[in-house]
Amino acid sequence: MNIMNTIGRMFRATTWGESHGRAVGCVVDGCPSNLQLTTEDIQRELDRRKPGQSSVTTSRGEKDRLEVLSGLFEGRTLGTPISMLVWNKDADSSKYEKLRDVVRPGHADLAWRMKYGVVDFRGGGRSSARETVGRVAAGAVAKKLLSKLNITTVGFAREIAGIRAGGEANVSSAKVIDSNSVRTIDLNAARLMERAIIAAKEDNDSVGGIVECASFGVPPGLGEPVFGKLSSDLASAVMSIPGVKGFEIGCGFALARMNGSESNDPFILSKGLVKTRTNNSGGILGGISNGMPLVVRAAFKPTSSIAKKQKTVNLKTNRQVEIQVEGRHDPCIVPRAVPIVEAMVNLVLADHGLMSGVIPREIR
Amino acid sequence: MNIMNTIGRMFRATTWGESHGRAVGCVVDGCPSNLQLTTEDIQRELDRRKPGQSSVTTSRGEKDRLEVLSGLFEGRTLGTPISMLVWNKDADSSKYEKLRDVVRPGHADLAWRMKYGVVDFRGGGRSSARETVGRVAAGAVAKKLLSKLNITTVGFAREIAGIRAGGEANVSSAKVIDSNSVRTIDLNAARLMERAIIAAKEDNDSVGGIVECASFGVPPGLGEPVFGKLSSDLASAVMSIPGVKGFEIGCGFALARMNGSESNDPFILSKGLVKTRTNNSGGILGGISNGMPLVVRAAFKPTSSIAKKQKTVNLKTNRQVEIQVEGRHDPCIVPRAVPIVEAMVNLVLADHGLMSGVIPREIR
Amino acid sequence: MNIMNTIGRMFRATTWGESHGRAVGCVVDGCPSNLQLTTEDIQRELDRRKPGQSSVTTSRGEKDRLEVLSGLFEGRTLGTPISMLVWNKDADSSKYEKLRDVVRPGHADLAWRMKYGVVDFRGGGRSSARETVGRVAAGAVAKKLLSKLNITTVGFAREIAGIRAGGEANVSSAKVIDSNSVRTIDLNAARLMERAIIAAKEDNDSVGGIVECASFGVPPGLGEPVFGKLSSDLASAVMSIPGVKGFEIGCGFALARMNGSESNDPFILSKGLVKTRTNNSGGILGGISNGMPLVVRAAFKPTSSIAKKQKTVNLKTNRQVEIQVEGRHDPCIVPRAVPIVEAMVNLVLADHGLMSGVIPREIR
Amino acid sequence: MNIMNTIGRMFRATTWGESHGRAVGCVVDGCPSNLQLTTEDIQRELDRRKPGQSSVTTSRGEKDRLEVLSGLFEGRTLGTPISMLVWNKDADSSKYEKLRDVVRPGHADLAWRMKYGVVDFRGGGRSSARETVGRVAAGAVAKKLLSKLNITTVGFAREIAGIRAGGEANVSSAKVIDSNSVRTIDLNAARLMERAIIAAKEDNDSVGGIVECASFGVPPGLGEPVFGKLSSDLASAVMSIPGVKGFEIGCGFALARMNGSESNDPFILSKGLVKTRTNNSGGILGGISNGMPLVVRAAFKPTSSIAKKQKTVNLKTNRQVEIQVEGRHDPCIVPRAVPIVEAMVNLVLADHGLMSGVIPREIR
Repeated sequence: MNIMNTIGRMFRATTWGESHGRAVGCVVDGCPSNLQLTTEDIQRELDRRKPGQSSVTTSRGEKDRLEVLSGLFEGRTLGTPISMLVWNKDADSSKYEKLRDVVRPGHADLAWRMKYGVVDFRGGGRSSARETVGRVAAGAVAKKLLSKLNITTVGFAREIAGIRAGGEANVSSAKVIDSNSVRTIDLNAARLMERAIIAAKEDNDSVGGIVECASFGVPPGLGEPVFGKLSSDLASAVMSIPGVKGFEIGCGFALARMNGSESNDPFILSKGLVKTRTNNSGGILGGISNGMPLVVRAAFKPTSSIAKKQKTVNLKTNRQVEIQVEGRHDPCIVPRAVPIVEAMVNLVLADHGLMSGVIPREIR
Repeated sequence: MNIMNTIGRMFRATTWGESHGRAVGCVVDGCPSNLQLTTEDIQRELDRRKPGQSSVTTSRGEKDRLEVLSGLFEGRTLGTPISMLVWNKDADSSKYEKLRDVVRPGHADLAWRMKYGVVDFRGGGRSSARETVGRVAAGAVAKKLLSKLNITTVGFAREIAGIRAGGEANVSSAKVIDSNSVRTIDLNAARLMERAIIAAKEDNDSVGGIVECASFGVPPGLGEPVFGKLSSDLASAVMSIPGVKGFEIGCGFALARMNGSESNDPFILSKGLVKTRTNNSGGILGGISNGMPLVVRAAFKPTSSIAKKQKTVNLKTNRQVEIQVEGRHDPCIVPRAVPIVEAMVNLVLADHGLMSGVIPREIR
Repeated sequence: MNIMNTIGRMFRATTWGESHGRAVGCVVDGCPSNLQLTTEDIQRELDRRKPGQSSVTTSRGEKDRLEVLSGLFEGRTLGTPISMLVWNKDADSSKYEKLRDVVRPGHADLAWRMKYGVVDFRGGGRSSARETVGRVAAGAVAKKLLSKLNITTVGFAREIAGIRAGGEANVSSAKVIDSNSVRTIDLNAARLMERAIIAAKEDNDSVGGIVECASFGVPPGLGEPVFGKLSSDLASAVMSIPGVKGFEIGCGFALARMNGSESNDPFILSKGLVKTRTNNSGGILGGISNGMPLVVRAAFKPTSSIAKKQKTVNLKTNRQVEIQVEGRHDPCIVPRAVPIVEAMVNLVLADHGLMSGVIPREIR
Repeated sequence: MNIMNTIGRMFRATTWGESHGRAVGCVVDGCPSNLQLTTEDIQRELDRRKPGQSSVTTSRGEKDRLEVLSGLFEGRTLGTPISMLVWNKDADSSKYEKLRDVVRPGHADLAWRMKYGVVDFRGGGRSSARETVGRVAAGAVAKKLLSKLNITTVGFAREIAGIRAGGEANVSSAKVIDSNSVRTIDLNAARLMERAIIAAKEDNDSVGGIVECASFGVPPGLGEPVFGKLSSDLASAVMSIPGVKGFEIGCGFALARMNGSESNDPFILSKGLVKTRTNNSGGILGGISNGMPLVVRAAFKPTSSIAKKQKTVNLKTNRQVEIQVEGRHDPCIVPRAVPIVEAMVNLVLADHGLMSGVIPREIR
């Protein structure tokens, strides 16, 4: 039921705002009533997404202080829309005037211009990753809601610049992950990843990577066949993040190279419950959660904004020109993308929890 | 706007039917009026999906003759719902009685049972790939509609059992692709792929692969930011196909290993139009089509039904048992999946064509 | 969430079919699994809607035998789409050829032609009241589901040709209502109404009326503010029935002439529960059910098809002409509309029951 | 496609905010790009809705100054979400503390409490008519958009306290209507209506009435059969306004008392176009606009908040009590409801204009 700037059916989020407009924000609709929720619950997630966290992120100096305008009363949700916003304070549009007519390679500029005719070219306007502030705020509400069911989602950088992190996330990996600047679970890989990002930056270039996200405690039975599958909704949600070009569940693309006798997860009895011995399917069979950890992965392309010279076109003069994209950009979006992927997964799980009746409309 | 068994917002398809029920079918809603459409237009696509086409497909002997029950009048669409069905004739349920309580590894059996309590265990019931008859029928309507805009979608097996096809599809590749039993564009690879499938079958095992799908003639401007992106909708649609565990656009996961200076597609002027020199982004930037060919890829796991012994659980006796899945199955679903992936892409394009106003509500 | 030919969000019905096409039918999606349901449960409601029931209804001789094609297994719902159809058998198109270019006053003919360009002019095509077969079938599934919660909806003719029935419906009024040809609760009024209908018929004319529908046992808390109010959804559903031009809840339009001190229903304690002493609000306050009986009313215009001469236009010759609408028509649609209004109310209640979590996804 | 706090499919509005919360507002999504739009366009409509306009409206002193936070750039719409808000400044919650546990007759208090458990009881919280600020702001955007197609919607008080205004609205009636405090077209009736309202106020009571709304210039072909009819969507939208209990199109309930030969509008040729001689059907046939003026009517109950003593229940003590609702209230909501009904009609027309392709996605 994703349509335009709204995601979800029963737990719904609508984001709004341009990068250099007055503010960015979102409206969350359908959150059950009587959930204890504080601004701090949401601010904590925004702080993980905000710019300027470390040497590998952009220097744009937004504090990103959240304001909640509706939907909360005496510390609890009302079941009514939760309207939230963050004012844009450090928007520096000066470097963008030259982009009024020149489209940046790898960016949405041309495609959006073809669609809308008029665009806010400052900082990418609506197609800027700044739009994800609203997603993370909405996702934080979903996260709080899911915590009532003991559902925990943990994301991390599985790969950056071709460097792969070893090991698997578990329900308490968050601490390790947030302890390093690239948000991975493997501290050796972390050092190499950080180095690769800085090297790319020094070379006026950028690198990509893969975010992996595991959700623990997901009850079986989430997912609506055949077009509202949990897998379809996760794919749609994660693919909507700026820069994501690939998505997989469980072993994903690697499954295409296995035999059925390898890939099928055998069913076993474990403490009276039917589980699978392996989890190649990533917690989803036939589009529906099976009670095993939910594992998804998103491939992020390298940051499109690079200071290297690139070929492009000036739409006004209709001439071939060169461009060096200035402004303040992350040389790799993966570290800050981790909380965004988590947010999207949490939004989908909250929606399916409500649809399936697992989450009640009023928290008790 | 996918919800349960309905996909699409303005061009909408609802599929229904169980594998061994009386029939399978779909209702297409929102197709513009006055489109010339014949049963044969649809039958042609169903014939590409139907079982028993070659040595590498199942021997279930369904002729899959389509009946159109509404929405057509004097050879043209009315703009009203097009109801279509195919009767199930060769359903052989005898081998499934033993599956009443035993869940098949890799299948939806357990997850669906946890969700619904009651399932039609015969032939996978609703979670059977037979459900895709409705998708292909709906997709054929979308295909006919898109042909009015000169949009052509061509799918093929890019990889089977680890064997990769060389070359790229173009607007007239369909003939080569349908000339070989595995539906690929590389006839050398075709022979190896076919051999690998037959070897797997003889070993009571199965193999997976990757379907690639390219759409030519897609106008720029399709896609609705930020949650209704063309990329999100394609991901959702393709990931809803039984057996798909991964999805990518353009260079997809490979982009995660590039630098920005490699991955960004430079803009160039070509006959007065702005194009990109390369097409790493697969025709979508910022979630919106940019006029370049649309390229997506889907990773199919190996067929779950294999005759090899597997470990599982009998839910009634609550005991660990072994299972050999009998019945008639494709040792590799990729060849028959090609028209299914095409159908899903076409459904998404028709929906976006209508939303963006590129496709009128009445064909003239 | 009504869009085109689909109604509902969580309990969804899609109807299809033209009056003189091969069949009419519907797909119900989202019905909980494990509900006991038989073809007879549905046939019973169709029989109340079918033509040729009495002297006051059309003589079109459709038996309207229902076929269920999917979604049922061993007498229980699977939670998958329930596809149902009725073949059109007694369609007599001979009288309609002359309507190929002449639009009938009061009918959808002109408006649909302006929208779609091409229409199936035989028997009104898709805009025929025959489309409501699908609604009644879907509504019968909802009715069975709601019976599990002891929710009972009773409709009747409150007024026909200006003759008003006295009294109020209660939970067991169905028997009286179905005992008379006009489906009212007041047997004295019934006789007058029947006489008025027959008089109109003999005069080659038609009459209108008002259907009232009361739902008992509706739990408080159904309805989603502010645009998905129960009142909004009921209005939308009922106004979608062919021929309905007005809708009201509780005292409706009469409330516009009261003072607040009259119209406000005082709250009282009744066996420990908070009730209202009167029910002017018809069971809905602020868009949400309050536990009192739900009362709605629909104004039906007179049947548009009349044998009297009327002025109209031939679209081909572009000339003013006269028309006498032949064919077999009800001189008053109210008696057969009663089960249709009930069906629409039941569809809305089932949808809201699921959204609010009052109805579980699996019946136990 | 109305769901929870969002209305519309292609032109979508989501409202948020509680009466005594920090602000109220809305997000409009799907507005075409390149539409000239100023804050003043929207403020003008808010001023018609704002409190304290005259002797017949509440004295709550909100200036209701609109702020636009996104979606506009250099005086034009971007096609991205338009986020708008009005800060609550004069909220006086002191009189509401006593309502923490006492439910007001005629209000949503009890029903919402049954649904949500927790409510913001101050000023009605989310169920307050203050929520309609967001509707009017969104409707103003729709109005501006529709003005590009020369579609004009004019609402007025057709009846207040049983006093009926004579005459019909035309495309330039706005001036007369806004010239009198009750917003009617008949200045004689205006005086009587105003007197009746003041009399009710002096008696600590309130009165209701009927708003009529006519839309001129609506092109034929708007409306999506069979559940997305223009009539259904108008009914849903208008019935969602607080206090509306009845809705009709054209002659509405009066049609139920006509014969078919009276009610059918004869088709005539007028300057080469097919029109109807009368407009009993109110511009909609078969759910689709036919090019005649669109006429709808909404029945408003008397204001629920009255200073007269009323019977109710204290939910905490579980005892019968009496209540006199203090606070600042309109003794009749009809005058301020006129721009709200217009807003809802405009939202529906914009949505259908986009769906039908009559309104392009980019204004040129």
